[in-house]
Amino acid sequence: MRVALADAQGTILKRRAVPTAAEDGPEAVIQHMVQAISAMAAEGKGAVRVGVGAPGPIDHRTGTILQPPHLPGWVAVPLLSILESRLGLPVRLGNDANLAALGEHRFGAGRGIDNFIYITVSTGIGGGIISGGRLLLGERGLAGEVGHIVVERDGPLCSCGQRGCLEAVASGTAIARQAREVIASGGGTMMVELSQGQEVTAEIVAAAARAGDGAAEEIMADASRALGAGIVSLLHLFNPRRIIIGGGVANAWELLVKPVQERLPGLVMAKGFAEGVDIVPAALGDDAGLMGAIALWL
Amino acid sequence: MRVALADAQGTILKRRAVPTAAEDGPEAVIQHMVQAISAMAAEGKGAVRVGVGAPGPIDHRTGTILQPPHLPGWVAVPLLSILESRLGLPVRLGNDANLAALGEHRFGAGRGIDNFIYITVSTGIGGGIISGGRLLLGERGLAGEVGHIVVERDGPLCSCGQRGCLEAVASGTAIARQAREVIASGGGTMMVELSQGQEVTAEIVAAAARAGDGAAEEIMADASRALGAGIVSLLHLFNPRRIIIGGGVANAWELLVKPVQERLPGLVMAKGFAEGVDIVPAALGDDAGLMGAIALWL
Repeated sequence: MRVALADAQGTILKRRAVPTAAEDGPEAVIQHMVQAISAMAAEGKGAVRVGVGAPGPIDHRTGTILQPPHLPGWVAVPLLSILESRLGLPVRLGNDANLAALGEHRFGAGRGIDNFIYITVSTGIGGGIISGGRLLLGERGLAGEVGHIVVERDGPLCSCGQRGCLEAVASGTAIARQAREVIASGGGTMMVELSQGQEVTAEIVAAAARAGDGAAEEIMADASRALGAGIVSLLHLFNPRRIIIGGGVANAWELLVKPVQERLPGLVMAKGFAEGVDIVPAALGDDAGLMGAIALWL
Repeated sequence: MRVALADAQGTILKRRAVPTAAEDGPEAVIQHMVQAISAMAAEGKGAVRVGVGAPGPIDHRTGTILQPPHLPGWVAVPLLSILESRLGLPVRLGNDANLAALGEHRFGAGRGIDNFIYITVSTGIGGGIISGGRLLLGERGLAGEVGHIVVERDGPLCSCGQRGCLEAVASGTAIARQAREVIASGGGTMMVELSQGQEVTAEIVAAAARAGDGAAEEIMADASRALGAGIVSLLHLFNPRRIIIGGGVANAWELLVKPVQERLPGLVMAKGFAEGVDIVPAALGDDAGLMGAIALWL
């Protein structure tokens, strides 16, 4: 958990990292949040307002964390009202991937761009959509779940319970799963070697692919094609000017994203969907969500 | 081609249908348009303004029809400037599926709904997205191509050149193609019978499915599952309050749409994406685009 104090221009004055574990459950994590925010707020001058990012989906109307696939135990937690009552300060709450999009819009790779899609690819895939200069929220603030568009119906099971979501075929978790399947069927010697007895990870698959291992190359190429299918769907639906990609995938850019960049003009239904469109890395790294939480009040 | 004269409240005063053929090519069709609009405009009182709907994708910034998959010969036609100069009247131009969404928003099944997705399923699949009370246009006005989201990567070839688009697996054309494949492999006796020597159509597949033909039932169920995958992607991306479905599919509602309605709560990543969401038929029928063209000026 990252906590920061920023001024009215969004400049960070102080920051702190607080270790938490999702396994602790909502009550323990919320206690940590309240303590860390209170301590930080005490150092602020004037009226302090609080912006919080948390894993989505979050109901924007009620400030409730619904049921994030990666946070067991968090079901329908009314985080906004809990924080407001315990802190005694005005609070705004956003889905962390949506906030990262907002952060990139205000401070990062999306500055001056009215229509872009932010995609974060790591163990899961999340994102946020800036459309017409504004964060697209939808009816309850749940919009922007780019990891859960179906690109392969009847495909692999996703953490969300569906089959064939983008997250189930192009995330770090999906890449590692593919590698385990290859290894289980007797292949992937280099990946086994590189993992040195540990569980094989997407980083190891990427390293093996870079070293020329055919099985690893094919896994990365397949994840890249799946990411391409997802990006094509997003171009056809939103007609953005830019795609911003963050998350751990930035470390495997040439394997996952570059092939999509190169094939983009041939993937869209009319040239206009790809003309002038670029795919660029996120600028704010791990701070994107933090900067977005600040942007909630600017 | 439908031409109408409406007052400033959007009430249609006069209307006319003009037969045209896409095969005639742009110049002949544009001549018909100019004649029909001029004649209608001559009957208007006061300042006449012209709203035009045409097949997308259309570049909204320049008023150019880019290259609609179903209109051979129309490539980069600057329709807006051609009409403005020949008519001598102010013209606004929109993608017909986007305009149908706008029409439904102003006059039809989307009245009072700030976030909905209009999908028209017939030979192709098109649509339009109302987000935060406004038509979502994107950077160049190309947004809303809901028929060209990829739901089955490596799936059947689509009219747009890609594989596995929603249109390629759930449109009337896709249903008829599946039927032809079943028939070619020696099955589909009832569909052959019902088509009476003519080419089998989606209507015939639907009729055979209603009569209990197993092969036809399976084709319709598969198209329905594909439509469901597309709708789930749209719910996760846009978090709409309503899905409005128009086009010929309304005639096979119980086969294509009803199964999606029933399974919706189990298809989304969190209940909140389906709670309070309904799937309803379009209200304006074939007039949706016409009403949207009128709404362009209201």
